[in-house]
Amino acid sequence: MKVVAFGGGHGLGASLRALRGIRPQLDLELTAVVTVGDNGGSSGRLRAERGILPPGDLRQALAALSAEDETSARTAALLQHRFTAAGFGAEDPLTGHAVGNLLLCGLMELLGDPIAALDHAAGLVRAQGRVLPMSKQGVQLEADVRGADPDRPEEISTVHGQHEVAVTRGTVQQVRLLPKDPPACPEALAAVAEADWLIFGPGSWYTSVIPHLLVPELAAAILASPARRLVLLNLAAEKETFGLSVADHLAALAWYLPGLTADVVLADPAAVGDPEPVAGAAESLGARLVLAPVAVPDGSPRHDPVTLGTALVPVLEVDR
Amino acid sequence: MKVVAFGGGHGLGASLRALRGIRPQLDLELTAVVTVGDNGGSSGRLRAERGILPPGDLRQALAALSAEDETSARTAALLQHRFTAAGFGAEDPLTGHAVGNLLLCGLMELLGDPIAALDHAAGLVRAQGRVLPMSKQGVQLEADVRGADPDRPEEISTVHGQHEVAVTRGTVQQVRLLPKDPPACPEALAAVAEADWLIFGPGSWYTSVIPHLLVPELAAAILASPARRLVLLNLAAEKETFGLSVADHLAALAWYLPGLTADVVLADPAAVGDPEPVAGAAESLGARLVLAPVAVPDGSPRHDPVTLGTALVPVLEVDR
Repeated sequence: MKVVAFGGGHGLGASLRALRGIRPQLDLELTAVVTVGDNGGSSGRLRAERGILPPGDLRQALAALSAEDETSARTAALLQHRFTAAGFGAEDPLTGHAVGNLLLCGLMELLGDPIAALDHAAGLVRAQGRVLPMSKQGVQLEADVRGADPDRPEEISTVHGQHEVAVTRGTVQQVRLLPKDPPACPEALAAVAEADWLIFGPGSWYTSVIPHLLVPELAAAILASPARRLVLLNLAAEKETFGLSVADHLAALAWYLPGLTADVVLADPAAVGDPEPVAGAAESLGARLVLAPVAVPDGSPRHDPVTLGTALVPVLEVDR
Repeated sequence: MKVVAFGGGHGLGASLRALRGIRPQLDLELTAVVTVGDNGGSSGRLRAERGILPPGDLRQALAALSAEDETSARTAALLQHRFTAAGFGAEDPLTGHAVGNLLLCGLMELLGDPIAALDHAAGLVRAQGRVLPMSKQGVQLEADVRGADPDRPEEISTVHGQHEVAVTRGTVQQVRLLPKDPPACPEALAAVAEADWLIFGPGSWYTSVIPHLLVPELAAAILASPARRLVLLNLAAEKETFGLSVADHLAALAWYLPGLTADVVLADPAAVGDPEPVAGAAESLGARLVLAPVAVPDGSPRHDPVTLGTALVPVLEVDR
């Protein structure tokens, strides 16, 4: 069964870890399609200084898909290792960079092609799936935000940059990509066309989930795909989606990609609260709402890869 | 047959590539023991800024021993990839670093042990041998140099740092390590004790070959080892050994490690010129001189891994 998971950052890592765990059981062929809008931190520096695709979200996806034998796990831990301030707390030029970002940067320079670079890096961690960018060309995100300046709570202004959108103090009205029609990654388009399931979320809705729907070729491929669609809802509100209800998250998908339908929406009951409006919003997408406890037991808003995987099995195997 | 090759930098890379090539034929078990005195360039920066063993010479040895399948060769090329000035020739914080140096730095930080880091990196390139540092503790090199200041050609001064010694304009009188008795790497001592052959050179004599003889525990292990010893001579004079004849190179070994003997000295006839004094110096070490064309055909002073390997086979297999 071919599954394509869209997202970026920690949210995509959560869905990929769950999918990796049930991959043998369902014979899954996994593809992660990853946002390329990051402009903050290590990725932002490498992007600005060396002109490469922002590597951080790609690295996270590779680590999430890495094989679980000791050697692969150690290589994945190496990719995730972040250089902290060195001795005596002194910052040096490496401080803040993850090793995997530097390694992907080197591979992209060496091979001249981000797909070849990602496939090679995937081999280093024996990844249990393929990691692709949504576009081979980095994009910028911008948003119209109400009250970005707390002194002018009603004013709508434009916030530039994925990082700035993610941390804005205002309410996001609308997000856009720059350029507005980046070319989609052809390998990602092919994966979408051949998929049995497309999975959206969890993750930062405006900066990790919706950007995929804003790439015109990718949006068209999603609409045209014969695959079933699953939406994995978040466990907690985020700064960038302040003011959005759980139901609003679902409505936003069809607002950004008119015509998008879904088959299943999976959510944790504790995050949903009253299921009525969420079930209604799911129904508006054509989807049924499935509630299952998928958070880690300690109460923090993170998906547990094992319970999420367990919840995914009956959802995905409907076709079998 | 167990072979330990001592050196650093390009010279060690040359012997290791040749040994890798004949490894299947002679069933070689290879160990590279590498200097840890580098204080220049990428290694010097990482050493100063992050307090790790200088990784550059270790990286070169790993690349030289990497397996020759396409994937391993690509990973080795990644380790060797050096970030040049980025777009528009702008230097950024990565400029000058080799990816492998950053990867080794990350592994050493992650695992807290340079040997575990090197063994893991060796696995990434499917290295056909083990790479060890001569000491797990970085050392500094210093030298008494005559005429380091060209305005005072007869004055003897102390030059500090391996890089500074390697490029001095004066004549090196004596090199020393600081500290003068760094602990030897225990795994290197064990390899020396079990070796059938110890190989010294080629390489920068004062900064890559002789430093091993200055580590007291390693020097004692070399003298005590039942292994035969082979010296591979350089193809051209270097700045740091200005004034040393080919024969002087051999004499220097016993001068720095009294009691050191050798079994074979292998040299290219074009680099030796009149063989008489070199044969005499070899004989003083107890060695016979073997002359064989081992340079690349284009006339540059680099060893050809194939012809060097071919020349090594009859030398090494004397025991079989």
